[in-house]
Amino acid sequence: MTTERVSALLTDLYQLNMVQAYLDHDETRTAVFEFFVRTLPARRGFLLAAGLEQALDYLENLRFSAAEIAWLKSTGRFRQNLLDYLADFRFSGDVHAMPEGTTFFANEPILRVTAPLPQAQFAESRLINILHFQTLIAAKAARMVLAAPDKALVDFGMRRAHGAEAGTMAARASYIAGFAGTATVSAGREFGIPLYGTMAHSFIEAFDDETAAFAAFAQSRPDNLVLLIDTYDTEAAARKVVALAPRLKAAGIAIRGVRLDSGDLVALSKSVRKILDAGGLGELTIFASGGLDEDSLVAFAEANAPIDGLGIGTSLTTSADVPNLDSVYKMQEYAGLARRKRSAKKATWPGRKQVWRRYGADGRMAGDVLALEGRGHAGEPLIELVVQNGRRLRPAPSLVEVRRRAARELERLPEPLRRLEAGTTYPVEVADELKQLAAEVDRRLALQQPRP
Amino acid sequence: MTTERVSALLTDLYQLNMVQAYLDHDETRTAVFEFFVRTLPARRGFLLAAGLEQALDYLENLRFSAAEIAWLKSTGRFRQNLLDYLADFRFSGDVHAMPEGTTFFANEPILRVTAPLPQAQFAESRLINILHFQTLIAAKAARMVLAAPDKALVDFGMRRAHGAEAGTMAARASYIAGFAGTATVSAGREFGIPLYGTMAHSFIEAFDDETAAFAAFAQSRPDNLVLLIDTYDTEAAARKVVALAPRLKAAGIAIRGVRLDSGDLVALSKSVRKILDAGGLGELTIFASGGLDEDSLVAFAEANAPIDGLGIGTSLTTSADVPNLDSVYKMQEYAGLARRKRSAKKATWPGRKQVWRRYGADGRMAGDVLALEGRGHAGEPLIELVVQNGRRLRPAPSLVEVRRRAARELERLPEPLRRLEAGTTYPVEVADELKQLAAEVDRRLALQQPRP
Repeated sequence: MTTERVSALLTDLYQLNMVQAYLDHDETRTAVFEFFVRTLPARRGFLLAAGLEQALDYLENLRFSAAEIAWLKSTGRFRQNLLDYLADFRFSGDVHAMPEGTTFFANEPILRVTAPLPQAQFAESRLINILHFQTLIAAKAARMVLAAPDKALVDFGMRRAHGAEAGTMAARASYIAGFAGTATVSAGREFGIPLYGTMAHSFIEAFDDETAAFAAFAQSRPDNLVLLIDTYDTEAAARKVVALAPRLKAAGIAIRGVRLDSGDLVALSKSVRKILDAGGLGELTIFASGGLDEDSLVAFAEANAPIDGLGIGTSLTTSADVPNLDSVYKMQEYAGLARRKRSAKKATWPGRKQVWRRYGADGRMAGDVLALEGRGHAGEPLIELVVQNGRRLRPAPSLVEVRRRAARELERLPEPLRRLEAGTTYPVEVADELKQLAAEVDRRLALQQPRP
Repeated sequence: MTTERVSALLTDLYQLNMVQAYLDHDETRTAVFEFFVRTLPARRGFLLAAGLEQALDYLENLRFSAAEIAWLKSTGRFRQNLLDYLADFRFSGDVHAMPEGTTFFANEPILRVTAPLPQAQFAESRLINILHFQTLIAAKAARMVLAAPDKALVDFGMRRAHGAEAGTMAARASYIAGFAGTATVSAGREFGIPLYGTMAHSFIEAFDDETAAFAAFAQSRPDNLVLLIDTYDTEAAARKVVALAPRLKAAGIAIRGVRLDSGDLVALSKSVRKILDAGGLGELTIFASGGLDEDSLVAFAEANAPIDGLGIGTSLTTSADVPNLDSVYKMQEYAGLARRKRSAKKATWPGRKQVWRRYGADGRMAGDVLALEGRGHAGEPLIELVVQNGRRLRPAPSLVEVRRRAARELERLPEPLRRLEAGTTYPVEVADELKQLAAEVDRRLALQQPRP
């Protein structure tokens, strides 16, 4: 949970090993690392940047407590110079980033850290941990929003998200992408995300009679009253709702909708719609849930299922079809020299980069250029300075502003990407100056690393 | 992070809705809920129970702070009786569970909560969140342990785990399943899990010369020295290691091993092994990492790749092929009457259950019986009372004890399950008394819920 402090020791041991060695050898000059995704999975034509606020919070608040330092010392692994360094640790570097809610593609950095090498290196593990997850979920949620643009989509997935932080941050990332809200109360409190919730089957089962359960719930929760009608027999329960409605109305309680959570949701939504309409409850909405993903949403739209809102759980919060991205945080420059990894299939573009985005006459995105910072290219530059010398340059945008940006970004996607067509690629050109720099780095390395 | 307090508001809004209604209608009699997995995915022939300690910690420490109560009040959604109830909330019920490290199968409960209905209901969301994730990861890790029983497997996956808690708990769950350790420092501190870590490519790149980087690292980290050799040219780097070794030896530093993180790991491990052996470094181990999963481990074994240890990241900590389980927490009894959900494809077995496990003459598991508690069956009962009236009956077993139990459990799996053969099923019989109880519940419901 971001509301609580996450230990600075949530990192990989090798970061501490490396910082120890950097300090010992006085390798503390300025390093530049960038976070990006190397390749997009087949079912992700685009990604949506999310998690920057938590990444900046992490850098800004990264401290080692006395107890943590004492524990590190007790392991016998580290020397006093490292322990002293960590005790005084403050992030003092710069951060450049794409704003949250921006669409991005393979090899395009969404975050750059420029800082003394031990600082920039140490932050790697947790920065990836933060940015990877929210970006993963925002991209998944965006697919659902595009598949059901007129429906109220609600995050129901905390229970099967991977732990506490995942549950909370999935609510945040999906709200950015255009979800209407979440069931997760702590996410409502922490981020001001609208909260949604009805009842579970156990509530119905706790009463001996389904109508009695509906009536009891209605008395306790008269506002936004949504009744769960699939515990025993969905159509029979819809008729009970029709029978109950006048009694509730007399008590001043309006039923707002019903929820279906199992069975053939297309067929049931149609039959329930008929029962409600015939019973004079045409204004009631139908909310569906239960194992849904973007493919279900497409199927509902094609079948004209009369479903007004959807609760989406596990497929969203675990990004079930693509539960991870090939995201990395790589050193691109150190001590004034561009650097690059050349490992098989893992080579990266060196240097400090900027992404330029062009738009067509229709306002839709027409292509990106991955370029070196400081070179002019056509279009709009996406990466901006957000932290200087360890301090944020401006207050964080509100989550509603981020969500608005994301909505505009999704609108401007090329039509095949908006339609979630599989295998669609977006043109990202590598600028000539970047290719030249990569070749220069390779020549320098070849001179310094002669083959035997 | 379990070391920090996770908010009691990490729950679904509907839990609060239901507790409000239960209090209003005085439905606070004893309820029984069970956590189980409805169906096993095709690539999971068995699961491994994990997360019980965190689940019990959650129940034992579940409190609502004054700030949380004030926030709930400020939403205007809840009445004073609920706020008062939450302010005094203490879990006072019983918990029965399978010990952590026990193998289990579809429909077999690994946790049962017996408590006043509002308590047992409220705990649902976070209990699933805790037990689902660790069980998911323990099951995935167990596959890897079975695929490479003689190798040291190390969790490298915090960075792409879904958030902070997932990173830490994946280390715990994989250690239970038989991993040798983790790279995640906070997991080492919190759970005493052995820590592993070398260096990143950025370390090599920060130096102008690869040998200089190796030498610098060796001086700073002389113990358990493992050098990463795939940044530029793996075989060339192996020769540099051979050339460097005598110089380090003269300084009293022994290289322990090398790490490969890219390329054709089978071919490279063989060629690097030859280079090291020819250079008199036969005692050096080869450690491999980079996009590995249990299928890679099987392939390495088949190819006789001379790899001694493996760092496994993303596929482990996101359980990439099966990133979620169909896990639920269902009401099985309320106010002395067995209950059951009958929704399409989601029907559950009612009542308080016990699982009996039989073993063959070879000591291997021969079959389970899913039974009602209190009935005698052949074999060993797996579910035991662990919390009574809100208090733990005994101290938690150490993680090493849990890990030992898991190792014994994996040894006792039937051979096809140990070999990870796809589509293998294990016999779980439903006891007659349970079928009878289900039929009784259905008859009672049919009387109470006449079809129109």
